[in-house]
Amino acid sequence: MAELIPDTLIDVPTETRYHQLADRLAAAIRRGTLLPGSRLPSVRRSAETHRVSINTVVAAYRRLEDRGLIEARPQSGFYVCNALPVLESRVEEFSPAAEPSNDVLALIDTVFAAQLNPAYTNISLACPQTTDFYPGGKLGRIMSSLLRRQPQLIGQYALPPGSLHLRQQIARRSMALGMMLEPTDITLTHGCMEALQLALRVTTKPGDSVGLETPTYFYLLPLLASLGLKAVEIPTDPQDGLSLDALELLLNEKRLHAVIAMPTAQNPMGFTMPLAAKKRLAKLMNDHQVPLIEDGLYAEIQFGPTLSPAVKSFDTHGWVLFCTSFTKTLAPDFRIGWMAGGRFAEKLRHLKAVSSMSESALLSETLAVFLESGGFDHHLRTLRRRYAAQVDEAKSLIVRYFPQGTRATQPKGGFVFWVDLPPAVDTVRLFEQLLEEKICMTPGTLYSPSGRYRNALRLSCCYPFNARYTEALARVGRRACEISGLPPGIVTQAAE
Amino acid sequence: MAELIPDTLIDVPTETRYHQLADRLAAAIRRGTLLPGSRLPSVRRSAETHRVSINTVVAAYRRLEDRGLIEARPQSGFYVCNALPVLESRVEEFSPAAEPSNDVLALIDTVFAAQLNPAYTNISLACPQTTDFYPGGKLGRIMSSLLRRQPQLIGQYALPPGSLHLRQQIARRSMALGMMLEPTDITLTHGCMEALQLALRVTTKPGDSVGLETPTYFYLLPLLASLGLKAVEIPTDPQDGLSLDALELLLNEKRLHAVIAMPTAQNPMGFTMPLAAKKRLAKLMNDHQVPLIEDGLYAEIQFGPTLSPAVKSFDTHGWVLFCTSFTKTLAPDFRIGWMAGGRFAEKLRHLKAVSSMSESALLSETLAVFLESGGFDHHLRTLRRRYAAQVDEAKSLIVRYFPQGTRATQPKGGFVFWVDLPPAVDTVRLFEQLLEEKICMTPGTLYSPSGRYRNALRLSCCYPFNARYTEALARVGRRACEISGLPPGIVTQAAE
Repeated sequence: MAELIPDTLIDVPTETRYHQLADRLAAAIRRGTLLPGSRLPSVRRSAETHRVSINTVVAAYRRLEDRGLIEARPQSGFYVCNALPVLESRVEEFSPAAEPSNDVLALIDTVFAAQLNPAYTNISLACPQTTDFYPGGKLGRIMSSLLRRQPQLIGQYALPPGSLHLRQQIARRSMALGMMLEPTDITLTHGCMEALQLALRVTTKPGDSVGLETPTYFYLLPLLASLGLKAVEIPTDPQDGLSLDALELLLNEKRLHAVIAMPTAQNPMGFTMPLAAKKRLAKLMNDHQVPLIEDGLYAEIQFGPTLSPAVKSFDTHGWVLFCTSFTKTLAPDFRIGWMAGGRFAEKLRHLKAVSSMSESALLSETLAVFLESGGFDHHLRTLRRRYAAQVDEAKSLIVRYFPQGTRATQPKGGFVFWVDLPPAVDTVRLFEQLLEEKICMTPGTLYSPSGRYRNALRLSCCYPFNARYTEALARVGRRACEISGLPPGIVTQAAE
Repeated sequence: MAELIPDTLIDVPTETRYHQLADRLAAAIRRGTLLPGSRLPSVRRSAETHRVSINTVVAAYRRLEDRGLIEARPQSGFYVCNALPVLESRVEEFSPAAEPSNDVLALIDTVFAAQLNPAYTNISLACPQTTDFYPGGKLGRIMSSLLRRQPQLIGQYALPPGSLHLRQQIARRSMALGMMLEPTDITLTHGCMEALQLALRVTTKPGDSVGLETPTYFYLLPLLASLGLKAVEIPTDPQDGLSLDALELLLNEKRLHAVIAMPTAQNPMGFTMPLAAKKRLAKLMNDHQVPLIEDGLYAEIQFGPTLSPAVKSFDTHGWVLFCTSFTKTLAPDFRIGWMAGGRFAEKLRHLKAVSSMSESALLSETLAVFLESGGFDHHLRTLRRRYAAQVDEAKSLIVRYFPQGTRATQPKGGFVFWVDLPPAVDTVRLFEQLLEEKICMTPGTLYSPSGRYRNALRLSCCYPFNARYTEALARVGRRACEISGLPPGIVTQAAE
């Protein structure tokens, strides 16, 4: 690096110094001198090279990290990101909602059907297909052993509130996300989807308004509609999440009866709200006594070295309902989720029982035994690393094949991210064209109750990165280039 | 029998002849000359003995069967019933609803908690505990084999609409209840409870009125309340079911937005509507274009030699939604149910997906393989015989220990029935007293939105008939005798 950046930083003031170091490194990255994916020198070596303090280098690296140009990889160092321009704040672009789209459910049907049809390649759904990422073999052996030792399990009715053993394990583990829960705080659910459904039913009544992030998880929209609830889009920053100023305004005007948000590793954008924002969010909801339904589905698949805590961990008066599932983290097929309902916990327990009674004791016990064995933390560490690597790989493909002007979010966890294509690319039409080529993706309009984001799509990295997936992604990029008339190759464009 | 009934029937007219034969046999049963549980001579032998035609004997036996004095057991003959007086029509007793009871959920909580506490003996819940009645071992082996052959199953996300294999098997089997379904008509659900919940959500909106049987399944009441629905009790005959005249009146007055009923082996009374009534019910609902939610949970556990078909099998325009589950018939722990939504099928499929997504592929495939193997019919035949025998045994215990004046319904299937105690016995107080003795039952008030049936209780025969259960039942009887001041022994009283 000494060759790249002239060693002239010694005489400037400390504060300017790290800005300058950062700027020069950024320029080197943009020029392609520092190649995407390459490792930066260690902090110590950089300090020596540039004759600055270690603190200065750390500050410069942090600045580059914030700008999405480099990334820290645990136990490894700093690496140049895949140079995909970052989708920055879009709050100021927020405008009144357009006409809602009616054919969302039909479109989702098509997407699900394509996923189930082996002739199609899906690049968007968040339905784990990389089965070797999950310890199916080990869970299967636990299950077989349980069946041998307790052959009566299948013949016994599973009564609410369900496996105490599993709820104990969940309570113990919830500390990793900063929560202090008791087994009695926890309601087992049929996946996170049922947890969200119950949370909405317990906190709202038909006609109420529910605030949500934009873009948001697409299935929330028909869920809200099925419960007679109105969706209120809250401006959402692709990097920092929910605009708390906008939220506060809406709360002050008493226009929200509940808020549903994914403050950690959000779907579809992948952001994690900064810690201070999480605290303020918890305080806002408790101060206004409006329930926050916190969707924590990906909260245990964070890429950073430490886990950002749940907003629920800052909940002072029980207004936060935390919902999650083992569907993305451990056993996609089991559909065992859970929720901590705060002040609504007792009502929730009843609502779950009259809505779908309970969860299978066999599946619950299998998870509990796995969790108790301590294998979960090891599995999660591997899972995070693998998904982070797949996200990285997907980005490098976008860099290579997608048209100039494409921007993407920088997921802090999970396995999906959001891609903004040049405005000329209508992703609903692109979706229809690609379907004929047996490639399936989800257009951005799905993710907003008002059909925004017509030039965006969600990308999912839960598929095996084989030639077929790579070719599908390349094909999407080439199609987008054709439509927009723009050449591929983001690095060049970003260097302007 | 020749000794018991003087052979004087030869000279009377044929029509009178079987009435007289029936009356004499009835008297012999009441006197105790023909003991409860004893086998009647075969039709052929009786005809010879009394020198009447076989048709006359068959008619006389049928009459006794209708009066609940004898019962046909498949492949075995006619037996004297356990002389427990039959709870006959109560439609005329139907009066305007009393104040609804508010603590139903608290009471159900107590009942569930007691069921889970090994110190308590439950005699009321319909949660199978006689695990050797269910082929847990065989299902476990199928599951282990699936896991060996398809280790990826647990790691794969189960997308809607769920296992085609299972839906094919269900469609094939639905013919046994007279239905002609295609796999696409079928939505897999999380037990029958979720099927009912979804059926209500798809057919009604908050504020609507839903007609139901009285007494009805207790969990329907908080379910309706949770959806903002009003419960309308429809007079229900303990032997013939829903009063169709009352239902027609309500439909004509447009006072119902949906009806939820259990026309086959009803919970809690055990009746099966006569075939003509089922046909009329289907026609009424289709004529008025009001949805009927048919709860068919016990429809495959009918005691008779042939299965009474589902009302759904007479559905002409898709207004019947059939809901059921494998929870009571095959695998209590799996919580896999299904529904055929008629004209609401597509909306239902969407509602299921946004409410709780899908069912586990591992559990669904396990059931599908079992069903395909043909083992289900054999299992069901055994299950029906076993539950019929347990119901019979429970009745003989009631005969022995419960106070004079006790009456009970005659279940045509399932494993629960309804017991009316003398009016002096308040079963809510009895429930509280018994709880102190670690015995748990469900008072009749639970089964009505207006808290009717204060002197009734439901009895469940899904528990092993060991000394503990027997002693608990005897204890309930003795307590009821104490409270009412009446002696036990129903045979004597019924002989009056």
